[in-house]
Amino acid sequence: MKDNYCVIMGGGIGSRFWPFSRETYPKQFLDFFGTGRSLLQMTFDRFSKIIPVENIFIVTNEIYAPLIAEQLPELHPEQLLLEPSRRNTAPCIAYASYHIRACNPNANIIVAPSDHLILREDIFLQDVQKALNFVKENNALVTLGIKPSRPETGYGYIQSSDTMLGDFTKVKTFTEKPNLELAKIFQESGEFFWNSGLFVWNVNTIMAAFSKYLPDISARFDLGIGKFNTPEEKAFIQENFAYCLNISIDYGIMEKAENVYMLCVDFGWADLGTWGSLYDIGGKDEQENAILRGSRTMMYESTGNLVAMSDPQKIAVVQGLEGYIIAESKNVLMICKKEEEQRIKQFVADLQLKYGKEYS
Amino acid sequence: MKDNYCVIMGGGIGSRFWPFSRETYPKQFLDFFGTGRSLLQMTFDRFSKIIPVENIFIVTNEIYAPLIAEQLPELHPEQLLLEPSRRNTAPCIAYASYHIRACNPNANIIVAPSDHLILREDIFLQDVQKALNFVKENNALVTLGIKPSRPETGYGYIQSSDTMLGDFTKVKTFTEKPNLELAKIFQESGEFFWNSGLFVWNVNTIMAAFSKYLPDISARFDLGIGKFNTPEEKAFIQENFAYCLNISIDYGIMEKAENVYMLCVDFGWADLGTWGSLYDIGGKDEQENAILRGSRTMMYESTGNLVAMSDPQKIAVVQGLEGYIIAESKNVLMICKKEEEQRIKQFVADLQLKYGKEYS
Repeated sequence: MKDNYCVIMGGGIGSRFWPFSRETYPKQFLDFFGTGRSLLQMTFDRFSKIIPVENIFIVTNEIYAPLIAEQLPELHPEQLLLEPSRRNTAPCIAYASYHIRACNPNANIIVAPSDHLILREDIFLQDVQKALNFVKENNALVTLGIKPSRPETGYGYIQSSDTMLGDFTKVKTFTEKPNLELAKIFQESGEFFWNSGLFVWNVNTIMAAFSKYLPDISARFDLGIGKFNTPEEKAFIQENFAYCLNISIDYGIMEKAENVYMLCVDFGWADLGTWGSLYDIGGKDEQENAILRGSRTMMYESTGNLVAMSDPQKIAVVQGLEGYIIAESKNVLMICKKEEEQRIKQFVADLQLKYGKEYS
Repeated sequence: MKDNYCVIMGGGIGSRFWPFSRETYPKQFLDFFGTGRSLLQMTFDRFSKIIPVENIFIVTNEIYAPLIAEQLPELHPEQLLLEPSRRNTAPCIAYASYHIRACNPNANIIVAPSDHLILREDIFLQDVQKALNFVKENNALVTLGIKPSRPETGYGYIQSSDTMLGDFTKVKTFTEKPNLELAKIFQESGEFFWNSGLFVWNVNTIMAAFSKYLPDISARFDLGIGKFNTPEEKAFIQENFAYCLNISIDYGIMEKAENVYMLCVDFGWADLGTWGSLYDIGGKDEQENAILRGSRTMMYESTGNLVAMSDPQKIAVVQGLEGYIIAESKNVLMICKKEEEQRIKQFVADLQLKYGKEYS
């Protein structure tokens, strides 16, 4: 148990949830469901049930340090690993791995995004425990693959093989987001699983993979050997992090490594990637409207809408709308057809041009 | 000039402009156009150019006294005539008439709503002056009739006759709001004019009309003779006003009296009765969207909408909407088809039932 570590990646900017998420307040810090806990807090709460709290690290951009300190006051400052620039998941995971190895050279690590939804926590924790036990004994990079419940085109997929090691199957390939036709074939085949972005490995296994597949990143961090987990770490990172390649762990390592195994899981998982995904998983009223966070609403002749008001006292009175996102937060009201939500990034860019940064 | 008086009626609740107007903040107090002056302030400013400021009275419900004092700090408290209960325009005008007669038994009075829009002020003031001069010499109840510019079904009409007294035509009938077919006939005939609710008369002429056509109201106010314009007036009104019949001046006097004359005018008048009327008169962007008060907006594939945001810093990003009212004020966001706006009163009633008075 004391060898088990958790790395929560909390540096995303989540622009697709604008205007709720802002560059200064990304989605992992939001309490989407009005439960009183943000996605990040829920992620932390979940892992703290099976990982010693002092072994949980959060890697994030340094601009979010105050927000994290506010949301997770139980964290010691040393549990925050701050990136001075944005560099995708591979450098983020490399940094955490070097730090953790300096704390404990036998560490088994689960790496998790900070903004996913997990509905069946007991099953999730069993699966994570099983994977941590597995990587302790096996030189394997483990990914958790979600059994698809629908032909989703918004996720990447993992193809399994027949080669098993206990409950773990050797991974054949990672695939990009498929079109609908292909997604249907994937789902029917029983061979393909959603790529959850949840990874489990021993620290030495991932370090070896970095050396082999991302030697530039590895070499850069090797310059800091002896400084990790010491007062010198911060200055070293400030000086070197920006030189790392901007590359994802999937593309940089998982798609190339030979020792990738998957645990097939089914714990009610969703990547809250878009307003539409929130609509899909959220409860609906009789008119199929999804009302987020218990927002106050009066809906007349309105169906299939998603309403999200950041102010719990504010009411939305809506007449005659079908299939829209109505999202209101601070200085922005957005009304947009659900099927057009991929344009939100463009709206934000247009707004910046016209009115400056205050809305993004 | 010193015999000329103005009565501004400022007691309406303007529920059709919800959520901008509230029971505690009706539309006459709102700055609809972002000019920095409310409709009431603009009405006051207008009359103060031809009427001595101390001769301008505002009749309103007592609950609005603090708002008026705030918006028109130049008014003396005695210029506010406060109604302890809501009783329509006839009792309101009777009260003002009794008060003004006690100030000046030769007073010529223009009675005006506080929430109308007048675009050509110079013409307006000339017409008002002409009417004030007319009623000084003639025993006439004068109404200003607006030359119709379209077959409007939202206004009452006045039918003129061939009998003229100078520029003033004797009125044949007042009519209710017509249907569209009839409104077209009215406009084409050249005989019918919009009833603006602007009245001009000598104080003795209107007093005589009250005696003849609304003797109950007259008798009630006669009980207070000697008290008007004295410290006893307030207590008298508190005690007696509620006994007055709830009736409009149009129905109670204008439709019945024999000495009603109309001055036909054309000074860019609009009764800002509904969101739709604001849309009709307001400027539009290239997509025929009317953006009120310079609200910040980004409109995509959206046409024929009215957007009104009470917070000037707040932006509305709207995609794929046609023909809606989008109005946001304090604790309410309303999105409603323009053609359904007559249901706003019902929305407010529903809201009260569900959430209490805080939204109405």
